[in-house]
Amino acid sequence: MTHNYLGLDAGGTSTRAVVVSSDGRCRGIGKAGSGNPTSAGIQAATAAITAAVTQAVTSANAGQISGAALAVAGAGDAGHRAAIVAALSDLVAGEPVFEFDVLAAYFSGTAAPDGYVLLSGTGASAVRVEDGRLAAISDGLGWLIGDVGSGFWLGREVVRAGLAPLDGRGSSTLLTGLLLDTLGITPDDQRTGGRTSALVAATAALYAMAPLRLADFASLVFVAAGAGDRVAAGILDEAAAGLTETLAAVRTSDVEGPLVAAGSVLARQPDFANRVAPGAVVATDGLAGAAVLALRRAGVHVDDDVYLRVTSSLAQLASV
Amino acid sequence: MTHNYLGLDAGGTSTRAVVVSSDGRCRGIGKAGSGNPTSAGIQAATAAITAAVTQAVTSANAGQISGAALAVAGAGDAGHRAAIVAALSDLVAGEPVFEFDVLAAYFSGTAAPDGYVLLSGTGASAVRVEDGRLAAISDGLGWLIGDVGSGFWLGREVVRAGLAPLDGRGSSTLLTGLLLDTLGITPDDQRTGGRTSALVAATAALYAMAPLRLADFASLVFVAAGAGDRVAAGILDEAAAGLTETLAAVRTSDVEGPLVAAGSVLARQPDFANRVAPGAVVATDGLAGAAVLALRRAGVHVDDDVYLRVTSSLAQLASV
Repeated sequence: MTHNYLGLDAGGTSTRAVVVSSDGRCRGIGKAGSGNPTSAGIQAATAAITAAVTQAVTSANAGQISGAALAVAGAGDAGHRAAIVAALSDLVAGEPVFEFDVLAAYFSGTAAPDGYVLLSGTGASAVRVEDGRLAAISDGLGWLIGDVGSGFWLGREVVRAGLAPLDGRGSSTLLTGLLLDTLGITPDDQRTGGRTSALVAATAALYAMAPLRLADFASLVFVAAGAGDRVAAGILDEAAAGLTETLAAVRTSDVEGPLVAAGSVLARQPDFANRVAPGAVVATDGLAGAAVLALRRAGVHVDDDVYLRVTSSLAQLASV
Repeated sequence: MTHNYLGLDAGGTSTRAVVVSSDGRCRGIGKAGSGNPTSAGIQAATAAITAAVTQAVTSANAGQISGAALAVAGAGDAGHRAAIVAALSDLVAGEPVFEFDVLAAYFSGTAAPDGYVLLSGTGASAVRVEDGRLAAISDGLGWLIGDVGSGFWLGREVVRAGLAPLDGRGSSTLLTGLLLDTLGITPDDQRTGGRTSALVAATAALYAMAPLRLADFASLVFVAAGAGDRVAAGILDEAAAGLTETLAAVRTSDVEGPLVAAGSVLARQPDFANRVAPGAVVATDGLAGAAVLALRRAGVHVDDDVYLRVTSSLAQLASV
């Protein structure tokens, strides 16, 4: 008899849900806004999760959902988890299982129960997976004190290096013009309190943002480095060294498995991904991994055939 | 005829006020908590400023205050300034003049109208002073995107380098033990979600603080470097290079004047101050500079005699 399960991949940008049957066929998907309770607030996160799950279940038209695996970023708080479980109680039979979101990233690239994932999105971390579970993690300590080589880390370095020449520090770099363009600031000759108008306007605009939004400037470093900018190349060298160290920290000779590269930075910058994670499978969609986690937690053996069915049926649903 | 003026030095840690007469004699001082409207809120800041000024005026017992110079950190907002002026209207005749707090730091080290100040406290910046006014400033862009070599910058590097070995990254360093001791964390063998208990506890404690509080860990880098720790020495090398570049950015051959080193990091670490600002006068108290600013803005010529009277009378008042 075929059962149906729910996989959920909820992050700071979007929340996605999938209904998958025990043979690996994905039958319905749903999408909504941020489902990260820490950054979006628990009410907004719960609403987004409920919307995505309802959409997936409705479009699957598959009857009862026998179990669920929830990969929700920023859901460490027990109260938040209880609120999410309560919101899904009418949609899912049994108690949902919470999963590390990095595991969904890992299984979006491979069906192998043992291996590694290096992630650089807004944050950055590396994980060793053993028997389908998180065995070790390095970095992922967040924007303020960690996440070396992440989108936030790159964006902050872009800002620092881009602003420095505006008050006579650092080296001349294309990042200055790219940053001011992105902020919509046109330099002029005025000064306020000893600072150029461009620097005053840029500083005000940057502090008006939530700190994590600095990740939005990460792409500029690749643009500038591609145009031969040495400052940008230096930032990428440092990011690559940090990510390489992060991955090395979870490597062990006992686990030979595949390497998955995930997160928006690595998914969008294949050359950089190849530099920090040579030979890695680049995973662009955490939803396949959420489906695999739902199957694994339900006791379904996810072999290469089932895995291929997951990814191909998901691709078909997403293209509709 | 002798007039009396008010000098105010309000920062994130404390607010201090001084009443100084036109001959340079300081007649009363006052002290209260944070007077930084941005970090403490305008209500608390105004209350602290009023309390410090009232105390200074009362203890001076000198009759009318003819003018005031207010060096208030984080008082860029016009509404905040208006609230502070309104709160002082019964205590000071005429319109108070707002001053850059870095100018109070500068004039706490010298009476010369032209020169430089390098500041590293919670933040970091360098300023060129010409004719008693701010002519150029470098860095001072705040904790998120600037302030290289500041207390915050050092504290964040202490945290990053101290935590790294707890998940297998970075080099072994004394900073790990010093940081965990400071946080009151005792390592054990438990792991949660692939992380050691010490790392989980430290991360939770650090994110529970306001980001600027990372500056509290800055002193640990000097302790570790003093004990021969290479990681700590590397952090200090980078901080020194950054501060040296910040100072160089405001230097010009046209201005020969003295160099003042200010801020808690430089005031408490004379060897480090000497490294980044060789030959500098180290200013430990912004209050003398606030008195000098009050005199200068009232048109009093502050020569070496007047300056000596300011600092010696202030020292006497502070020792009571």
